Amino acid sequence: MARWARLDERRFIELMARLCAAPAGAVPRTLLGIGDDAAILRWPGGADLLFTTDFLTDGVHFRRAWMPGFLLGRKALAVNISDIAAMGGVPRVCVLSVGLPRDTVAAYARDVARGAADQARRHGVAIVGGDTCAAERLFVNVALLGSVRPGRAVRRSGARPGDGLYVTGGLGAAGAGLAVLERRHRAGTGRAAIRAHLDPDPRALLGRLLGESRVARAMIDLSDGLVQDLPRLCLASGVGAIVEEAAVPVARAAVGAVGPAQARALAISGGEDYELLFAARDADAQAIERLARLARLPITRIGQVVPPADGVRLLTGAGRYLPFARLPRGFVHFRGRN
Amino acid sequence: MARWARLDERRFIELMARLCAAPAGAVPRTLLGIGDDAAILRWPGGADLLFTTDFLTDGVHFRRAWMPGFLLGRKALAVNISDIAAMGGVPRVCVLSVGLPRDTVAAYARDVARGAADQARRHGVAIVGGDTCAAERLFVNVALLGSVRPGRAVRRSGARPGDGLYVTGGLGAAGAGLAVLERRHRAGTGRAAIRAHLDPDPRALLGRLLGESRVARAMIDLSDGLVQDLPRLCLASGVGAIVEEAAVPVARAAVGAVGPAQARALAISGGEDYELLFAARDADAQAIERLARLARLPITRIGQVVPPADGVRLLTGAGRYLPFARLPRGFVHFRGRN
Repeated sequence: MARWARLDERRFIELMARLCAAPAGAVPRTLLGIGDDAAILRWPGGADLLFTTDFLTDGVHFRRAWMPGFLLGRKALAVNISDIAAMGGVPRVCVLSVGLPRDTVAAYARDVARGAADQARRHGVAIVGGDTCAAERLFVNVALLGSVRPGRAVRRSGARPGDGLYVTGGLGAAGAGLAVLERRHRAGTGRAAIRAHLDPDPRALLGRLLGESRVARAMIDLSDGLVQDLPRLCLASGVGAIVEEAAVPVARAAVGAVGPAQARALAISGGEDYELLFAARDADAQAIERLARLARLPITRIGQVVPPADGVRLLTGAGRYLPFARLPRGFVHFRGRN
Repeated sequence: MARWARLDERRFIELMARLCAAPAGAVPRTLLGIGDDAAILRWPGGADLLFTTDFLTDGVHFRRAWMPGFLLGRKALAVNISDIAAMGGVPRVCVLSVGLPRDTVAAYARDVARGAADQARRHGVAIVGGDTCAAERLFVNVALLGSVRPGRAVRRSGARPGDGLYVTGGLGAAGAGLAVLERRHRAGTGRAAIRAHLDPDPRALLGRLLGESRVARAMIDLSDGLVQDLPRLCLASGVGAIVEEAAVPVARAAVGAVGPAQARALAISGGEDYELLFAARDADAQAIERLARLARLPITRIGQVVPPADGVRLLTGAGRYLPFARLPRGFVHFRGRN
């Protein structure tokens, strides 16, 4: 019989989307359901709500041996905050579920709670509920509500041919940190990369600014790497894209950890950087510069949106065009590796 | 070092509540945070929102060997719908996280999704997002938003001495079903009890009616059994209670599965019946009868609320008063058993 390995995440989400059409006349009205970084809900009389969920589980998203409890709690919040940022919204309220194996040291469990509370406080999020119980393997699930001005949520589907493609910050650091943690590379000066992997900093302010200013026409957060997330944005928008390899900003921490060649590869194929990828009109180039200064974070133009027939391709330094579908897939959690 | 066994759920939730006070000036305003069946949020301009999360995990809440995927999906929704019902609200929108071990048969995963979608449809709930990924052990987490008219949410804290204590339906069936599944009892006529354990039917309509009518002054759903959930309601309300053992309605399915003596014990100590326990004024006795007829479900007066100094006690058929704290604890998932 077919096993889970063959029913992958994408197909499962597609199945859910088919099964879960919102009931007619439902309150709130579901403006956007499964398939973006967060759902958009129009509650009568109020602001639009954003609703997302994400979990981290031991042996898949992290290994308990190298993940301090405090950072696990912080990261569980961070990955959800990143989803709300990618919709141009403001994270507001969350609930937390923690499954704790019987052999969990109590101090570790407390650290998870403290880390979650710390990240929530930094972003003005209230943790209003939770469920905790014994579990065979440690996991942390967060469901987060955000808000956004009606009609201002940024979807994946708004990119149009001619738009520029931009990313925030530098890429590859989290992937390099994971490589060091897994001892696939000597540590070298890998501390900053390890930090990037264990304790990502979601781009909450910039996401909100890009949404409220209407500069971002389509946006997604880079959780699975450019190699997977750019095609998702293009698919949702019904467009193609050309990315110039030489333009992709490589995080200094990645170079320090794994050297320039590997770092460049991980900037495209590595996951979990939680930077934002968005499409914007060229007329907004100056606005983007201003937002970058305001948020004290570089924003880099890495390519442009093209008609769908042109596909999603990487223009290498050597002048060759490589389809994204043929690039090595980076981050499929640990599935490909053990 | 202290292990998780000693940092129990209650203490972890208390820790979270301490750590997670809502930020000042937060939007929405948190009317009620951690510690009830759901949080109450006042979103500017809209209805009050209810927000809850609950998960089921293999080896703790169920065993995959005897839990069909379809019913697992249904139950994951049901336990969350029950939380919203216990607040007097209407379940509206949810997100779903599914952690699937690599050896999961694809058909099983699809059945989980179908079961969740089926239960959602029955209750008019939209599933608007999800996360799925490989996990070492199967789990399903749901976070559910409900709505309630402003100020009408029913908390655990509103019971006052003199109120009557009521439960919906009959108790003990789910506990008896679990006993049969674990082969602690011969199956006998245990099918209905097994069904009660695997496929609980949350009291969505009755919860909503009890809230909107203002009949329920305090309410909680019976997820961990009367023996644990009544003291929670009393603690939150700052009251005591006397329950008459002979008045506790024993589910016929429980008697059929494990015999009358065991069934009576499980009606008090067994978990997962997902019936509602509430306190109401004696003046509302007729209104309660009307609501029961409307919902086609019996509602039984099992005792009354007393001053806190009198404690929480069971009046046995033999005329003895037993403190609830000294009764055998029933459902602590499988923790006590293996």
